[in-house]
Amino acid sequence: MILVVDVGNTRIKAAVFEGATLFEIFVFSKMELQKNIENILEKFQNVTDLVISSVGDVEKQSFLDFKKVLKVHFISHEDSFPFHNCYATPKTLGIDRMVLASGATIQFPKQNRLVIDAGTCITYDFIDEKDNYLGGAIAPGLRLRYEALHNYTAKLPLLSFQSPEDFIGNSTSESIHSGVVNGFVYEIDGFIDEYKARYPNFIIILTGGDTDFLAKRLKNTIFANSNFLLESLNQTFQYKIKND
Amino acid sequence: MILVVDVGNTRIKAAVFEGATLFEIFVFSKMELQKNIENILEKFQNVTDLVISSVGDVEKQSFLDFKKVLKVHFISHEDSFPFHNCYATPKTLGIDRMVLASGATIQFPKQNRLVIDAGTCITYDFIDEKDNYLGGAIAPGLRLRYEALHNYTAKLPLLSFQSPEDFIGNSTSESIHSGVVNGFVYEIDGFIDEYKARYPNFIIILTGGDTDFLAKRLKNTIFANSNFLLESLNQTFQYKIKND
Repeated sequence: MILVVDVGNTRIKAAVFEGATLFEIFVFSKMELQKNIENILEKFQNVTDLVISSVGDVEKQSFLDFKKVLKVHFISHEDSFPFHNCYATPKTLGIDRMVLASGATIQFPKQNRLVIDAGTCITYDFIDEKDNYLGGAIAPGLRLRYEALHNYTAKLPLLSFQSPEDFIGNSTSESIHSGVVNGFVYEIDGFIDEYKARYPNFIIILTGGDTDFLAKRLKNTIFANSNFLLESLNQTFQYKIKND
Repeated sequence: MILVVDVGNTRIKAAVFEGATLFEIFVFSKMELQKNIENILEKFQNVTDLVISSVGDVEKQSFLDFKKVLKVHFISHEDSFPFHNCYATPKTLGIDRMVLASGATIQFPKQNRLVIDAGTCITYDFIDEKDNYLGGAIAPGLRLRYEALHNYTAKLPLLSFQSPEDFIGNSTSESIHSGVVNGFVYEIDGFIDEYKARYPNFIIILTGGDTDFLAKRLKNTIFANSNFLLESLNQTFQYKIKND
């Protein structure tokens, strides 16, 4: 069994896999990292490998402590990936984006693929039908937009996500919900339209914390899977074992 | 002569008017407020009235000190405005948005009007042909998006605005420029398209710090005027004098 851990900018997601089968998902904060992994290992005593993808600021040592009981692997730029990386700055390409591109390449072979990950940031990653990773885009995610409005202005409140009633907000909170949420949806549809104009056919894979909400709102047809990064992490590791 | 002062979230803009004629524009930081106003008054000795619209966190006293030499007016929710305010929370409607709506109502009478102000935040305000102010939306502005990406993630750099080469960014900086700048443009066009679907005819007025850049990028036809808020402040004051 394998325990995969995705360290994001805001939280940590982990999952236990046996082969391609996902047994259970865990979500916790960075502060509770070690305690949570201990609990998972107690519940799943057959775990032999710990696989980490990190874009957050968690110390490596927090994971290395588990070396006594299992094999610890950090997915890094030096690993083998199933795509050709055409990025001009491959060393600064986020490991999460490389893992997503790997998962897309393996799960949806030989076609144009756009992966949209809507989390703390929203990332767009495009892999063409010849398995060339071309790059994409990074913008603030939904929660970040709400926080920025409050933290960088004198008078706007901090609101929690709420689906706007209309695109014309008739109160301060409705104006913010419309600006953040509708704006976010228009932006994603705008990017997809731009890809459509260049590539006649491609599959769209949507993942991240805001998957369920967005899947209902986007005008384009997408393949929505909020666990796509965790599944991709498992697949990236399987690929690495076979090819390293 | 009238000196109008717009206190925003990031900076202060001021302008000297005589009737409808704009003589000069000044941009400065909150720290340099008093010194700058003193300099302006020294240069334009015929200024009789100081008119302030503020959404920033500048103390009222900084302006009241000038009461010895001229009349000081703070535009507030209690003033007369040339539109019917249909906002459900009129007391939390930003004074800047009320001033923009006034300017649009006065400068473009008896038609549907959408005002887009692209500054620290981007605001959308709609006034219908019967002069009903309906509301709109608020989202983070261009600079805020760059800052949020850096400040809320562990590894993304703080970049200055740059026009992206392509919507598929092939490096970390190009990915950020594409996500922030293209995303911003898609979002604005998305809002305009939504208004178009509901209102067959309306005029679009674009203002704020990012006016010049956006005017070239948006697919829709707009009336671009980076001084629209200052002109509207002058007009709002003229309207207030006649109607209060």
